[in-house]
Amino acid sequence: MFNLVPLENGLENVKGFFCGATNVGMRTNPANSGISDVDGDVAFIRSETPCDISSVFTSNTFQAAPIKHYQKYPKDFQTNFVLINAKNANAMTGEKGIEDIESIMSTLSSKQNVLNPVMSSTGVIGYRLPIDKITSAFDILDFNASNSHQTARAIMTTDAFKKELAYKVELENGNSFNIAAICKGAGMINPAMATMLCFIITDADIPKSDMDELLTVATEGSFNRISVDGDTSTNDTVMLLSNKQSGSYDKDAFGGALNKIMFELAMLVLRDGEGANKLVAFEVNGARSEEEAKKASMALSNSLLVKTALFGEDPNWGRIASTIGASGIACDDETLTIHYDDLLIYSSEFRELDKMREDKAYKIMKQDSFKVTCDIGLGDGSYTSYGCDLSYEYVKINAEYRT
Amino acid sequence: MFNLVPLENGLENVKGFFCGATNVGMRTNPANSGISDVDGDVAFIRSETPCDISSVFTSNTFQAAPIKHYQKYPKDFQTNFVLINAKNANAMTGEKGIEDIESIMSTLSSKQNVLNPVMSSTGVIGYRLPIDKITSAFDILDFNASNSHQTARAIMTTDAFKKELAYKVELENGNSFNIAAICKGAGMINPAMATMLCFIITDADIPKSDMDELLTVATEGSFNRISVDGDTSTNDTVMLLSNKQSGSYDKDAFGGALNKIMFELAMLVLRDGEGANKLVAFEVNGARSEEEAKKASMALSNSLLVKTALFGEDPNWGRIASTIGASGIACDDETLTIHYDDLLIYSSEFRELDKMREDKAYKIMKQDSFKVTCDIGLGDGSYTSYGCDLSYEYVKINAEYRT
Repeated sequence: MFNLVPLENGLENVKGFFCGATNVGMRTNPANSGISDVDGDVAFIRSETPCDISSVFTSNTFQAAPIKHYQKYPKDFQTNFVLINAKNANAMTGEKGIEDIESIMSTLSSKQNVLNPVMSSTGVIGYRLPIDKITSAFDILDFNASNSHQTARAIMTTDAFKKELAYKVELENGNSFNIAAICKGAGMINPAMATMLCFIITDADIPKSDMDELLTVATEGSFNRISVDGDTSTNDTVMLLSNKQSGSYDKDAFGGALNKIMFELAMLVLRDGEGANKLVAFEVNGARSEEEAKKASMALSNSLLVKTALFGEDPNWGRIASTIGASGIACDDETLTIHYDDLLIYSSEFRELDKMREDKAYKIMKQDSFKVTCDIGLGDGSYTSYGCDLSYEYVKINAEYRT
Repeated sequence: MFNLVPLENGLENVKGFFCGATNVGMRTNPANSGISDVDGDVAFIRSETPCDISSVFTSNTFQAAPIKHYQKYPKDFQTNFVLINAKNANAMTGEKGIEDIESIMSTLSSKQNVLNPVMSSTGVIGYRLPIDKITSAFDILDFNASNSHQTARAIMTTDAFKKELAYKVELENGNSFNIAAICKGAGMINPAMATMLCFIITDADIPKSDMDELLTVATEGSFNRISVDGDTSTNDTVMLLSNKQSGSYDKDAFGGALNKIMFELAMLVLRDGEGANKLVAFEVNGARSEEEAKKASMALSNSLLVKTALFGEDPNWGRIASTIGASGIACDDETLTIHYDDLLIYSSEFRELDKMREDKAYKIMKQDSFKVTCDIGLGDGSYTSYGCDLSYEYVKINAEYRT
């Protein structure tokens, strides 16, 4: 048993960590995000003592330079510093992109005591980092201050709002540790990792092997289950850093807290899906296997026709059924049932939508969020993924955003 | 050697065939298509003599009732009658949906000499066919007239324009035969068959085994290579009917004509993609295998981010590269090159888009159609698929269209 207590001010709650951001002139166009010019474009998270670090990176073959730079460190390296920039992804920049990071880190290490510093970037693909601008931040940033809001805002791109969460984890024996995270991501969210950056820090005294194991589980239960538009970026990164300073740890409690914090962040990302208004859970049960349930569930959260039907609040189940059929899994219209929340909307007994059920369905679809449950009726495979609607705004944002 | 001569008036050019349509009151809402009330909702194509028939149907597991009804006929059956309706897909209607077709065909056979009549439907999923309305058409239709325009219009749903084509195929020996087709389809177009109906008729004296073989090849080269929104419907159908009345045939000539007519129809469907303004060919070369080239090419024609970038006329190659990387094929940013038409837009030598190339790229993207060529540089696998942009109109049409 353990208790999770929500805390204000995100990253500032974790012992021994510092964070902040500044603007070095890379973020000058607030057009898409509504972010004003004064918001940061270079941010840092550091710990006064060395941290173990576990990371999950994008499955995109073209991993960005910061990911390749990270992977040059020996397995199980420790670090005390994460540098983050917005507006430039440092992706598809070749060997030069890695050299640029090394040059930036070399300047950093002349000004600050850093151990194996890592970098994380988001923004436009294909342009070299402006090294001078980024290193100019090192003369401005206060490395001994902590400003979580500022840090969370600095990493935003098309995000409409910053995403930060923190929990105190109270153990049965009276001890406790804290866990906190910031995250960015709005578009390009796909099962197979969101295009997002997520930084989780903790003072829990967690062994490195548990970090690796629990981060994989929590990623599968959160960011890998959400879809905004089915694309996967070059820069997706989830990092977990622990400096052990609380001296406390419990595996179940930490796993529970990590799952919760990452799931909540994933829902915030989905809620912020570019132009999205509705959050919908697609629960598929009764498939022949979990794999088939996953295939159908993800087909639903990725389908343009389902997404536009959600936006239009069209209670028609035809697109749901058709998408399941198109996913290629075993299914049968005699055994299939579809519910919107608790309302039975399709079964082989009730194929045509009568007025009463249609009116109820409209009401359900008008909510900010609801659940579509599809029972295939052929086995016991289950999977739930999460999607959002597709609005005019999505097209506008992505037609105008210069990636 | 053979010669293809384009002909006006579509289906009317093929010896021994008749076609037409009428409105029985199913199509009463012209909101989405701009089709007026007087346009038909029930159409027919028939031959005065029995035809061989070959068909390719949707890969969707939930095949609509007309497809199941068709498949109850013995292999290599002959037919002389195709009945088509719009506004109701007769999909997810169970055994009743098939019984409804049998009932309609029983009425038809009391009024007309039909042999193994087949049906094809498009429209809303999940509702029973209005049998009385549909059979009322049999008292109105003139089965001995031929009106190709009327027939092509009657099968439209969200289509902005009718699609019909015809060719005279002149052989070296002085003989000739004709081939003609009508087609509907605009949204839901996916590699793995467009959501569309396509009816091809010919008086060529073609053996049934050639029909099966050549139709499969032509489908793979046309409708299976286009993508509007990545969805696959319950009703997709391509039918080829031949009544042999010309007495002429040449396999190469027929295959060439069939490939051409189906490719042209596929491009018309793409051009009519809901709200689409641009037609883009995605040619992938140099992949390790054709399969990998196909995977990358289809990822490009299906990507929402690529589609919105096309709509925004954003010459950024980052989304192209990222989508190839996300497709999971072997690729390397050192060997990759990307061209827009003849303009080199990315290579490891030219990563950043300079002003001159950016201006040229803008001009290319402003065209109605252009080609994106990606050379992976790792092998000799090639594949080309075709996509369109994604506009506000797409969202509007699909949010408002009651499927």
